[in-house]
Amino acid sequence: MKNFDFHNPTKILFGKGRIADLNDHVPADAKVLIIYGGGSAERTGVLGQVRAALCDRTFIEFGGIEPNPRYATTLNAVQAIKDNDITFLLAVGGGSVIDATKFIAMAALYEGDPWEILTSGSSKVTAAMPLGSVLTLPATGSEMNNGGVITNPEKIAKLPFRSPHCYPVFSVLDPELTYTLPARQIANGAADAFVHIVEQYLTYPSASHVQDGFAESLLRTLIDLGPKSLETPEDYDIRASLMWTATLALNGLIGAGVPQDWATHMIGHEITALNDTDHARTLAVVLPSLLSDQRGHKYEKLLQYATNVWGINEGSDDQRIDAAIDATRAFFEKLGIKTRLSDYGIAAAEIELIVTALQEHGMTALGEHNDITPSDVRRILEASL
Amino acid sequence: MKNFDFHNPTKILFGKGRIADLNDHVPADAKVLIIYGGGSAERTGVLGQVRAALCDRTFIEFGGIEPNPRYATTLNAVQAIKDNDITFLLAVGGGSVIDATKFIAMAALYEGDPWEILTSGSSKVTAAMPLGSVLTLPATGSEMNNGGVITNPEKIAKLPFRSPHCYPVFSVLDPELTYTLPARQIANGAADAFVHIVEQYLTYPSASHVQDGFAESLLRTLIDLGPKSLETPEDYDIRASLMWTATLALNGLIGAGVPQDWATHMIGHEITALNDTDHARTLAVVLPSLLSDQRGHKYEKLLQYATNVWGINEGSDDQRIDAAIDATRAFFEKLGIKTRLSDYGIAAAEIELIVTALQEHGMTALGEHNDITPSDVRRILEASL
Repeated sequence: MKNFDFHNPTKILFGKGRIADLNDHVPADAKVLIIYGGGSAERTGVLGQVRAALCDRTFIEFGGIEPNPRYATTLNAVQAIKDNDITFLLAVGGGSVIDATKFIAMAALYEGDPWEILTSGSSKVTAAMPLGSVLTLPATGSEMNNGGVITNPEKIAKLPFRSPHCYPVFSVLDPELTYTLPARQIANGAADAFVHIVEQYLTYPSASHVQDGFAESLLRTLIDLGPKSLETPEDYDIRASLMWTATLALNGLIGAGVPQDWATHMIGHEITALNDTDHARTLAVVLPSLLSDQRGHKYEKLLQYATNVWGINEGSDDQRIDAAIDATRAFFEKLGIKTRLSDYGIAAAEIELIVTALQEHGMTALGEHNDITPSDVRRILEASL
Repeated sequence: MKNFDFHNPTKILFGKGRIADLNDHVPADAKVLIIYGGGSAERTGVLGQVRAALCDRTFIEFGGIEPNPRYATTLNAVQAIKDNDITFLLAVGGGSVIDATKFIAMAALYEGDPWEILTSGSSKVTAAMPLGSVLTLPATGSEMNNGGVITNPEKIAKLPFRSPHCYPVFSVLDPELTYTLPARQIANGAADAFVHIVEQYLTYPSASHVQDGFAESLLRTLIDLGPKSLETPEDYDIRASLMWTATLALNGLIGAGVPQDWATHMIGHEITALNDTDHARTLAVVLPSLLSDQRGHKYEKLLQYATNVWGINEGSDDQRIDAAIDATRAFFEKLGIKTRLSDYGIAAAEIELIVTALQEHGMTALGEHNDITPSDVRRILEASL
């Protein structure tokens, strides 16, 4: 196990009806900016529950955060904060809304040009406004971590940030809020969480029994409950375990002290940039090919994955690895997620565009060994067609 | 899954040489009270490392915290804090030292008689001094939770406390510090952590896939690494996973949203009170008998335990449960921990003393259903002879 720091101060308020507890967790004298995305927050009644729970606090609302939250939109929110003397931010939505709210929380207190937060690391960030979240979509884990991604189409950039100042003070996780989500979003969330776990697990052995055991357990839970959550959308227990799994997939716990990969995410981001394919679907396309391509580096962990996650114990080592990768692909397909580039209208000719974009963004040494080159990516993508 | 709150703000500094990082985590202007137990902290060089890491900060030292920390001793520490204008507490030791330091942190700021903190719940506690810890013994989990136990022999009381104000700000977990521990303490720590997990897991099904999966994974890690950690005391990876397991066994994560038992602990406390048997050893005596006695209530989880923790899949349901309980007993014995009351000099006649003490302490409705009565305890203890 490597040395590590683990610190996660976010308070989780989990369960049915927990939005009502906002009254105990938002400061009584707060002037609140409610930040949300599209119309579903209103239609589903979540915003109504939030307004009621804030009781007699003053609040204003800022809607329109995009699925890949835009830099310009966050600056508009910062202006609204300044114009209205806001003291507390409340994100109501999924990962995009929470990511945007974190960035807004930092930008509102930042002395210089907020763009620097994204381009020169977040180390210049010394403070952020306090924020809470009401999670409506289990997927990204943003509700219990300190990072996010902001997109700036003008600069053709989708840039991550991370700062210890932007953990949510609290996050409300009510599984019932997920009942009305489209199946596509639940499936995407399960796939996103699955790949988050794999990126922190399927590298090389590091004698990290606790982290490996937790990662394998979360993967088995997703394999079991992901498809079931689509069949019976209002099964509370299934949605509850799915929601808690997605949070723990990326709250720092399973990644503490272990090598990490993240190549699938970096490649996937460029596919989304190319033709707006859903983030989770790009991961489902890239991961099986990447695992197969990188089997030399990942050999021991692929065998461990085959045994402990899929129960595959028959056949030669290579056969077991192939079977585990096939099972991974089948899991995504069972969720209704296609796993080939061609399923998303991407042909061989466009692979070069993806590879070039990666190079332009400095992503020329990916993976847990920093040795996946652009030509490796080309080969991986060709195998994904 | 039940509704739950989960909040754990302690920062973990894990790995080799991390005591040196105290300099980054103790406030630069702090006046520090170093709190420790016996002479081993000095002999092993841990105190020396701590002094060096505090650099030019002012500190004084307060040794002599007992294995079951005494109320009178904590009051002496509070006096030392007042006499020396201490601003930060640093616990250097195992669970007893950290428990005591938490209580001292509360008592130092408490307006009334500190005894009230133990007797009328901790709800009157509105503040505590900031504290950090350097853990030297993986066992109780006190390094990453908000509770503890204080003993007052004058009042024949061993009383627990819990307050959100006494999470350590940080805890240093350096597995190398455990190399010099006596085998008995390592074995006790592994057994204590094992039973902490069982108390939060082996109750009745609550469809809590994440928590069950994490608990089973931690139990398997202890079963695998506990005995190995005794065979090869300086195997860093084994000690590292053992240490992280003991922390996660009782940091609130696996217990969030699930039913909990704790009868074994309550009964075990009275055995310790009777003849000073090590805490972990009392648990190893009580648990197998309790599981066997309570198999009706715990039937489904015992079968799950047999399969997922021990890989026992052959035989009738009752045979599998018996085999799992036998394996549990054998695990303790493999750690060098005897599992019968008679091994600790307790005969049938003394069982009544234990039962009476439980009654006097109001422990008349134990377990996850609050239905284990004194006469049930008598039967459980008779089966433990």
